Formats: sequence, C-alpha cells, structure tokens
Amino acid sequence: MTITITAFERSPDGGKGLARDTRVRWALEEVGQPYEVRLVSFRAMKEPAHLALHPFGQIPTYEEGDLALFETGAIVFHIAERHGGLLPEDANARARAITWMFAAVNTVEPAILELVTAKIVEGDKPWTTERLPLVVDRIHDRLKPLSARLGSADWLDGAFSAGDLMMVSVLLRLKPSGLINAYPNLAAYVARGEARPAYKRAFAAQLAVNAG
Amino acid sequence: MTITITAFERSPDGGKGLARDTRVRWALEEVGQPYEVRLVSFRAMKEPAHLALHPFGQIPTYEEGDLALFETGAIVFHIAERHGGLLPEDANARARAITWMFAAVNTVEPAILELVTAKIVEGDKPWTTERLPLVVDRIHDRLKPLSARLGSADWLDGAFSAGDLMMVSVLLRLKPSGLINAYPNLAAYVARGEARPAYKRAFAAQLAVNAG
Repeated sequence: MTITITAFERSPDGGKGLARDTRVRWALEEVGQPYEVRLVSFRAMKEPAHLALHPFGQIPTYEEGDLALFETGAIVFHIAERHGGLLPEDANARARAITWMFAAVNTVEPAILELVTAKIVEGDKPWTTERLPLVVDRIHDRLKPLSARLGSADWLDGAFSAGDLMMVSVLLRLKPSGLINAYPNLAAYVARGEARPAYKRAFAAQLAVNAG
Repeated sequence: MTITITAFERSPDGGKGLARDTRVRWALEEVGQPYEVRLVSFRAMKEPAHLALHPFGQIPTYEEGDLALFETGAIVFHIAERHGGLLPEDANARARAITWMFAAVNTVEPAILELVTAKIVEGDKPWTTERLPLVVDRIHDRLKPLSARLGSADWLDGAFSAGDLMMVSVLLRLKPSGLINAYPNLAAYVARGEARPAYKRAFAAQLAVNAG
C-alpha cells in the first residue's frame, strides 16, 4: 500500500530540516519504505479536508490505505512497529526505546519549544530580553540530565532506535541557538544522527521541496 | 511479577490527583493489576538511586522484575500493550489510539504546562500579568480544535482507550483555571473520565497518601 505523508508547501525554516515531516521521512528511510508527499499550504492546513486528517491543522500526516495518522511520535512508532530496524526485539529493550520516544516529545521538546515561542511568537514583547535566560535555564534542566545519562554511549539505550530518532530530531531544534554545544556528548550524539545515510536522504528530500 | 511505581512523598498539589502517578495508577486500575507504591522525597528524586530509574529525576517510575521505565506515556502504553482494555484489537484503531496518546503529551500538554510555569515559576515576574493572556490563547488554540474533533462523541475514537486516559489526565490540569468550561463537550469528556470506577480508585489511592 502506498504511504503518503504531508509536508509544508514551503517550510518556515526554509529547508533546514526542522519541520516535523523530516522525522517521518527519516523513519521511512531507516526502514527502507518508499513514500509519496503531498504538499499543503498554510491555508489548506486549516481547511476541512486537512483537518479530517489532522485535527490540529498541522503537518505531517500519514496515510496508508484506510489508515490516517497524525503526531510524529505515533507515526514513527507505527512505522517502527511494522518494519524492522527501529525497535529492539527484546521486550524490555523495546519498552525502554518507546520510553525515550515519549521522553523526547514530552520531557525534552516542550522546554525547547518554549524557546522557539519566546524568540518568534513573543520576540517583539518588552519582557522577552529579561525572560529569555529563564527559558534557557529550563532547557539546561533537561539537557544536563540527558547528557549525564548518555555519558559516553553512542545511543541512549544500546543500538540506534526510534527513541534516538525522536530525541535527535528534538535536539536538532536547538541547533540555531548553539545551546547544545555546552554538552559535547549531546552535540556528538546529534551529529551521529545527522550522519546516518537515512537521515541524509530525509534531509535532502525536504530540502529539495524548499529549495525549489 | 510485582509492579512498583514511585510517587511523591507529598504531592505539590496536596492530593488533587494532578501528580503524574495518578495516570499510571488509573491505567493499572483499568486493567485490574495490583501495584505497590514507593514514596520518594524531593531530595531523594535527585539522588543516584532514583536517577538510575528516572534520568530527569521525576516521578513516576515503573518497575516490574528486570524492567524499569519512566515517562507516563510509555508506562501507560506498556500496561495497555500487556493487558486488555486500553487499546482496541483492530490494528488501525489501535494506531489511532496511540496517536491520541502522543497528541495528549506532545500537542495539548505543552500549552497547558506553559500556564503552570507562567503562574507558578514566573508568578512573581513583572511581565506575568501582561503575558498570561498570550499563554491562555495558546491553550485555546489546542482546546478549540480538540473540542471540534470530539463533537458529541463520548471518547476520541470509539471506545475508551489509553488515548482518552492520557488526554483526560492532561486536561485535568486545566481544572484550577476553569479554561475548559468554555468547551462544554470537553468538560463533559473530562467528567466522564473522572466518573470511571478505575479513575476513582486511582484518585482515592493518591489522596490517601497526601491526606496522611
């Protein structure tokens, strides 16, 4: 069955790979599944046809026959469950990999998104200069223990998994700020993710759309 | 095998059920699994023994034989995968229920936590009065489409699932603010969750700790 995902007609980041379709493309590349992309405009994202696929009017979505999904965590998990290579076979190791998927989107990403909101949505507000250090502190509250847990390992729990795919994707959003450079092992971890051939193919595919 | 979870020795909410162990207790009650609780102090949460279980030094954790997990989404999913009653049998319906689990923690909860941060962590800051309406607007940006999707249904996708358990748990955090009352169907949805016998048992169990 054909897999079709949606992506921005034109990504706000101009093709830096930070739009969330990159995570889904990466997962599909890791497991070797071909996919088609339907580009949507900001206007179309809020229209009934797209809202039927994604109630919050965002990208990406995932369609495969009768199945329609949204939320990158759920889509990546769906791909990981059905194809080999993104989740360990051992039941306990698999549960821990899923734990890292949730940790990426629920414990690490919210602090990082606060920075995006502070800089972009509230960038012109009178309080932003004074408030930014607090937002940055809350990111360090996440990065410091994450760095401590990773230690000198290549990946968070044994072999590369969907948990790493999600965590690297979330940490990539910090690249413009340089905050991750305070943690050399996390910076190397992100670079290790970016060096994977599957990531490179995913990045190139989204760039091709946005450089067009 | 005995299941042991961790919870606050004394919850910051004084037993209103908003600490995250309630979600895990609820899931275990839904599937009829007994569990033990180890209470941890704020100091103990940051010590090596607890950090080995939860790298970010939080509660709850979940231990079952050799397996140790953290992140409520992952723990609830683990419980739902191993016991009947929280995930549909049909593969597509199951994938959609998992989608709602991720939507709860990645799309809805971050906006709600921003309000908690603004009121509690930044409550004494000079910008908070002026900034709060923006934070509230971002919550409505999530609640409005969620309300539209729920419509007149009892649950988000067919029968009650782990997706509803997580979404109701996240929405419960809005109760003190009253924001959810602008959406009668969401308020009724949360009340429907709270009325479940399993939720009531979970709530009573955490209250017993905190009222002690």
